[in-house]
Amino acid sequence: MGVTTSRRAIVRIVDGADAGARPDTLAVESPLTVVLDGEVLVTTMRTPGHDLELAAGWLVNESGVRNSRHIASMGSFATSTDDEIDTVRLHLQDGVEPPRPRAFVTTAACGVCSADIIAGVSAPSEPLHSATWRLPAEAIAPLLDAMRAEQRMFDQTGSLHAAGLVSPALELLWAREDVGRHNAVDKVVGRALLDDLLPLADHVLVVSGRVSFEIVHKALTAGVAAIVAVSGPTTLAVDLAREHGLVLVGFARDGRFNVYAGADHVLLEEAS
Amino acid sequence: MGVTTSRRAIVRIVDGADAGARPDTLAVESPLTVVLDGEVLVTTMRTPGHDLELAAGWLVNESGVRNSRHIASMGSFATSTDDEIDTVRLHLQDGVEPPRPRAFVTTAACGVCSADIIAGVSAPSEPLHSATWRLPAEAIAPLLDAMRAEQRMFDQTGSLHAAGLVSPALELLWAREDVGRHNAVDKVVGRALLDDLLPLADHVLVVSGRVSFEIVHKALTAGVAAIVAVSGPTTLAVDLAREHGLVLVGFARDGRFNVYAGADHVLLEEAS
Repeated sequence: MGVTTSRRAIVRIVDGADAGARPDTLAVESPLTVVLDGEVLVTTMRTPGHDLELAAGWLVNESGVRNSRHIASMGSFATSTDDEIDTVRLHLQDGVEPPRPRAFVTTAACGVCSADIIAGVSAPSEPLHSATWRLPAEAIAPLLDAMRAEQRMFDQTGSLHAAGLVSPALELLWAREDVGRHNAVDKVVGRALLDDLLPLADHVLVVSGRVSFEIVHKALTAGVAAIVAVSGPTTLAVDLAREHGLVLVGFARDGRFNVYAGADHVLLEEAS
Repeated sequence: MGVTTSRRAIVRIVDGADAGARPDTLAVESPLTVVLDGEVLVTTMRTPGHDLELAAGWLVNESGVRNSRHIASMGSFATSTDDEIDTVRLHLQDGVEPPRPRAFVTTAACGVCSADIIAGVSAPSEPLHSATWRLPAEAIAPLLDAMRAEQRMFDQTGSLHAAGLVSPALELLWAREDVGRHNAVDKVVGRALLDDLLPLADHVLVVSGRVSFEIVHKALTAGVAAIVAVSGPTTLAVDLAREHGLVLVGFARDGRFNVYAGADHVLLEEAS
């Protein structure tokens, strides 16, 4: 486990006056380099910790990796003098499609429109949910509370994103925090990959922030049935979720939420 | 000006019960392709509108472009059948350093540590502030209020980032909104480039969200004197700001703020 928070001396100002210098706890942001077969794949900023999960989750979205055996070997290393983990080295099983630059559909004129982007996302290989699966409305607030209880770095820093994975029995399996929204989702999905749970039919991905196209794309690749988000989605996120039958719930807070896609699969409470 | 918000039919749930289907206004996310000399440079998701500013600001951070004459020509185009702007085509002046893959310093072992990342950022070419420049503590809340008043898309959607540029006379020059934090900053800086205001000594960059390494990097390239953020910075953001003498104010809300870097340049109110 890396150093996830770190203190810096800061000056607090309250009502225009110096309220004193004191150490403040910040979210650590530091680079992680992913090396495949000796070649640098990517260097990404992230909050240290769960680095193998981060790399594994990234591979799910960017390559043909779909189960733990697809990764022949994987390890995290400290290569600089500060002894912090800064590198993940890995080898894929023979025949597994390696990561490649994201293929955007480009027209002859070089432009890409939203329809191209949506058409460029493959359909999930397995159904996202079983025939009888429903997301109970009453489960949503407790799931968000459960994830919030796991956001220990947020409690210290006030500025980290979180994601969590919820089982078909509606239990929070694990939550991860990161300075990057995408990284938090990658860590959650990566843990599922390493536990050989993919595809995640009937599971729910909970996220602390907003839902963009990229978050929906990651959810579809992992095969979850639903995304529940504290904040709102973009148009492209909604359109992509609808295209593939992913349930998308947003602005889930204060006893309310909006269903942006898949409302037929949200089970409301019986009127009494 | 592109279509920045768009409506989708959604279902609202309040206290577990269906509160009715209604159209909801969402932030538009759609792809923009930037083409340099006929070659695709990048395709990025963004909120439409101010696309030339976005491309210009991106160039400031990623290339040698520092004034409007460095861009020989630039235009935005709709290349698909939906008539929405999806492409910016541009040519640089001869001799201007073109965008290149970001140069991360890599060690022989392929790892990159935070010290390498900070060392890899060039010092600003001009001083960030004049000798007598100070950021008055009392100006911070009004500046945030001024930016908030410009966040018209946020008012409609509840989920967009904003950035604003503040003049040496402490007036908000302009604010921009986008689904991406980085894009909002690029649009603000791009407008400054097109108005030939770079480098932005004694100016302040105001941002609605968190401050990561990348935001500080953009601020340094633009040459602003300070960043004022509603949310908190990461360790690497603070360390990079300190390295180059950039004032960094975070958690500016509710009459309080924290000074993470450059406290000597924050002017407190006189004790009465």
